Amino acid sequence: MIIIGEKLNSSIPSVHDAIEKRDAAFVQDLARRQEESGAQYLDINAGMFVEDECSHLRWLMNTVQQVTQLPLVIDTPDPQVAAAIVREYKGEKPIINSVTLEANRFEPMLNAALENDTGLVALCMDDSGVPDGVDRRIELAGELVDRLTKAGLKRQDIYLDPMVRPAGSGEAYGLEAIQSIKGIRALLPDVHIVCGLSNISFGLPKRALINRTFLVAAMTAGLDSAIMDPLNRELMASLYAANAVLGQDEYCIEYLGAYREELL
Amino acid sequence: MIIIGEKLNSSIPSVHDAIEKRDAAFVQDLARRQEESGAQYLDINAGMFVEDECSHLRWLMNTVQQVTQLPLVIDTPDPQVAAAIVREYKGEKPIINSVTLEANRFEPMLNAALENDTGLVALCMDDSGVPDGVDRRIELAGELVDRLTKAGLKRQDIYLDPMVRPAGSGEAYGLEAIQSIKGIRALLPDVHIVCGLSNISFGLPKRALINRTFLVAAMTAGLDSAIMDPLNRELMASLYAANAVLGQDEYCIEYLGAYREELL
Repeated sequence: MIIIGEKLNSSIPSVHDAIEKRDAAFVQDLARRQEESGAQYLDINAGMFVEDECSHLRWLMNTVQQVTQLPLVIDTPDPQVAAAIVREYKGEKPIINSVTLEANRFEPMLNAALENDTGLVALCMDDSGVPDGVDRRIELAGELVDRLTKAGLKRQDIYLDPMVRPAGSGEAYGLEAIQSIKGIRALLPDVHIVCGLSNISFGLPKRALINRTFLVAAMTAGLDSAIMDPLNRELMASLYAANAVLGQDEYCIEYLGAYREELL
Repeated sequence: MIIIGEKLNSSIPSVHDAIEKRDAAFVQDLARRQEESGAQYLDINAGMFVEDECSHLRWLMNTVQQVTQLPLVIDTPDPQVAAAIVREYKGEKPIINSVTLEANRFEPMLNAALENDTGLVALCMDDSGVPDGVDRRIELAGELVDRLTKAGLKRQDIYLDPMVRPAGSGEAYGLEAIQSIKGIRALLPDVHIVCGLSNISFGLPKRALINRTFLVAAMTAGLDSAIMDPLNRELMASLYAANAVLGQDEYCIEYLGAYREELL
């Protein structure tokens, strides 16, 4: 499992304030703690600053990179912002989050990724918006991989996101997500499948319980990366346990190590 | 998910003592509490009393049935014990646990089930013992269902057990279990798949964490019943959450109810 730390996101009020006030210590502390807790990438997002996303995201990137060498996930719906930021990025190969099949987003996001040799999160949606049902998600995944690879992106640089909808907001949306992951994994065994983990629990009580349960189910279905909260101890304990029971931790060596470090 | 309460088992020292001393209050309390916590069946086992299993199991059955109308799972490797007990059983259709393809066990266990119209747990093993690997488990499952149904047992009365081996005791035994469940479910969509949940965590620390993680993974793979501890609050919370994200609890109604009752 590839763990992408979700905390440096302007939709979190305290992070929003820190970005706005240029509170480097706050942001750097969040970066460090996510790294210490096991994050392999850090997602950075300044999307709440609609008027001036680019300068805020630039500051966030530079501030974070002063304290960590982890590769970053440049998280913006705006291809111009993505292109500008990734051009200035220094360090281990980043990921752009995200491209879609939307007409105004596909080409420029793809080009930003190709020109700067980045990974690319690809959301299973087009100009009709978030798709309904499993089959359409799998179809869009196939189309995305087909078009992205034909344009020159490597399969191992693609992170397909099935667009998880909140389990409590529709009929069996959780199952829709799990079956979409299973279907995409069966069709495309060699691309990454990623999701923003906390979407599943939106609107429900005890969100952390739903999130960690969904993580295990999604890993069983074929998820191999997640944008998630590495600071949540129970979530990370579930991840160690899932690796142990899903054959990603032979003889449970990592699990036993986490136990000795009192992480479980 | 069909929840089979595991607590009335002579391999648990306190239960062993209670059976030996004919401590009806202790046994009945365990039965009641498992029912209140959501068990739909209660497994009863007196297998540790090798010399006199039958009389101990009879007492256990009668004592339990004084306080609950839940159907029982008659848990014994001995076909003669199973036949004797199930013949005296009164109440909702029970399950015999278990038949195997072993020559001295197959026919008499099958006959006990057929003559008394019971469900039947069928372990994926034969005279060579516990099988190695996924393919052999699926093969044995197919053979069991084939022979059991040809003899007259209904498919919905069969509970296939893939024989989970402890995750910490071999190379990817957890994955072996999950892939076996996936494979059996793909081959046999209309039979039950069951397992003794706690086998997976034998020898590991924080067993309850492994058990609840494995439960979610196994449900995602196709498990629809488990012999488990309904008194473990976190395990039951994981089950509510799994039902919510796996489409077995539409709009998360049951999950929200469990939250309001402070069960999560």
